[in-house]
Amino acid sequence: MPAEPPTSEPTPSPFLEAARGGCPDRVPIWFQRQAGRSLPEYRAVRGSGSITEAILQPELAAEITLQPVRRYGVDAAVLFSDIVTPVHAIGVDIDVVPGIGPVVEQPFRSRADLGRLRPLDPEADTPYVLETIKAVISATDVPLIGFAGAPFTVASYLIEGRPSRTYGATKALMLGDEALWFDLMEALGDLAIASIRSQVNAGARAVQLFDSWAGALTPAHYRRYVLPTSQRVFAELADLNVPRVHFGVGTGELLGLFAEAGADMIGVDWRVPLSEARKRVGGLPVQGNLDPAVVLAGVEPTLAEAREVLGQAGPGGAHVFNLGHGVLPETNPEVLEALVEFVHAEGRTIAEAGLTADGTGDTSNGS
Amino acid sequence: MPAEPPTSEPTPSPFLEAARGGCPDRVPIWFQRQAGRSLPEYRAVRGSGSITEAILQPELAAEITLQPVRRYGVDAAVLFSDIVTPVHAIGVDIDVVPGIGPVVEQPFRSRADLGRLRPLDPEADTPYVLETIKAVISATDVPLIGFAGAPFTVASYLIEGRPSRTYGATKALMLGDEALWFDLMEALGDLAIASIRSQVNAGARAVQLFDSWAGALTPAHYRRYVLPTSQRVFAELADLNVPRVHFGVGTGELLGLFAEAGADMIGVDWRVPLSEARKRVGGLPVQGNLDPAVVLAGVEPTLAEAREVLGQAGPGGAHVFNLGHGVLPETNPEVLEALVEFVHAEGRTIAEAGLTADGTGDTSNGS
Repeated sequence: MPAEPPTSEPTPSPFLEAARGGCPDRVPIWFQRQAGRSLPEYRAVRGSGSITEAILQPELAAEITLQPVRRYGVDAAVLFSDIVTPVHAIGVDIDVVPGIGPVVEQPFRSRADLGRLRPLDPEADTPYVLETIKAVISATDVPLIGFAGAPFTVASYLIEGRPSRTYGATKALMLGDEALWFDLMEALGDLAIASIRSQVNAGARAVQLFDSWAGALTPAHYRRYVLPTSQRVFAELADLNVPRVHFGVGTGELLGLFAEAGADMIGVDWRVPLSEARKRVGGLPVQGNLDPAVVLAGVEPTLAEAREVLGQAGPGGAHVFNLGHGVLPETNPEVLEALVEFVHAEGRTIAEAGLTADGTGDTSNGS
Repeated sequence: MPAEPPTSEPTPSPFLEAARGGCPDRVPIWFQRQAGRSLPEYRAVRGSGSITEAILQPELAAEITLQPVRRYGVDAAVLFSDIVTPVHAIGVDIDVVPGIGPVVEQPFRSRADLGRLRPLDPEADTPYVLETIKAVISATDVPLIGFAGAPFTVASYLIEGRPSRTYGATKALMLGDEALWFDLMEALGDLAIASIRSQVNAGARAVQLFDSWAGALTPAHYRRYVLPTSQRVFAELADLNVPRVHFGVGTGELLGLFAEAGADMIGVDWRVPLSEARKRVGGLPVQGNLDPAVVLAGVEPTLAEAREVLGQAGPGGAHVFNLGHGVLPETNPEVLEALVEFVHAEGRTIAEAGLTADGTGDTSNGS
């Protein structure tokens, strides 16, 4: 389905401007996993069902998506969904179990399992996702970010059967049966492409590919086993003409390869200072990178660290402020409120001043 | 207690030579967590008690320590113990729970908890550790590596109460109460120093400080909150005149700071190629760095990857081959046997040839 032409000129967006390499008047900010358990209004509407069930209800999912936009005044909404939604929709026995994460009843281990991955027909398989998007965009001018899981990260859930610290089964399959691995990557790449295209056609104005666990790979393995598929995904999304963000955790050694994959903006976790990350991604816009655990320490440490992040990002824009990973469930929303206010009010000034002589972003002269 | 003078000249050791920056005839190799669940002979002797209970039995712990030395012919033994042994020995309610890891019944959260950390008297508190060491060194000429947990990593267990993916409580305390944090670091640094000194006095010929989870920190936080204590630990161990190894996972951005901490050799995980790691540690000897998950793929992929690691390590020695983290429990010991044989037989030749023109360590000319 081709993208429908917009019926009116979209509202200018600092997020979209920065993601395209521009320098908006204020530093845009949103939070990965901003919708969810950290918000009391989320817990109030969610009830007792699983996340997977909530995603199936467009009215509820749209409300959850909008909650953080209302509370925080962030510069982007992010679809309340999950990176396993498409595989779930085509019949894989996967559920998001509270306190654990995605769990697959029968993990993928052999070629026969490929048969369980039929192509996604987004209108038929995930109508609820598209309805959620339409409900969200009719309710807010803030751009909505759609997303999908990258093939490696989704494969790791399918193969391990549950979140892993070592990705042992995934790597064993990758190195032990290359032909099967690349077939699996292709099928999951197709899923990501189909899902993201449908989300943009429904109204998402930016997309993010989550390769959350790619940082578990050596650079050589990433280059051989993951990069080609991620390159294809981004290439096949280019004609959508929306900013494409590429994110992973612990990707310090992979940032150059992430840039090669073809995204418009690279998400960076807190382990790499943004001044260094900017070099590694060859000048692409960057998104990040406050450690989400810092927020647990309260307003004062959070704003001090935010100042550091802004100073590291430096002048010229092309930076979207975010956490280096998702909001932790135990986060106090009031700290994030203060953080948004701070970044909006002072972010551009701090970033333009850049790093001070002592190598930090502290431009406060002791105040 | 001062170190006892050796009664005879110790056997020459490729491991000790490489750890001191030399170039032994063969590339030395051992495996982190080489003693343990991956070995059938371990499962045969362990019985049903917890790891903590097994550590208390010197005869059993010495046997478990020696098993991989016999099976693999590795160049070092590593004490069968745990990084939480000293805190357990001084009365902290910590246990190593199978399938989970260290669990603390009452996590540390306030200044009152400091009172639970009295100084370690190794002879009185951990006589079983010292007896295990004596039993091991009387049974093998291979050098025994003693170890301790680094203050940050042990603190993370005490504060989180169990293994964590986010270290949220740890970082909240670190940033929220600096005075308490530094007092905790000092107490845990004292424990590490006392434990390691006693292990060397009992006969350990090298030591490793495990800061396994320091890679969760930003470089700025590591420098401020962790480095000073780790520097003190290494400085206070200098007079022991044994190689001091410093290891952590995901420390790519911290390798320069790890080198500043004062160790003689730096352990590197698989995320950073050793050629790059060598630059970051300023020429210190390096230990690593085969991804332990690769071993699950079987002999052929394992030896191919080992060739890459050796090529990346390059000529001139000062490299101890190891996995980038511990042996995974599901590892097939036969693959590690083949790996030891390969590294011993071909490692020096491959390393001296260094990287080939295509940037890999493959010097096999297609054979």
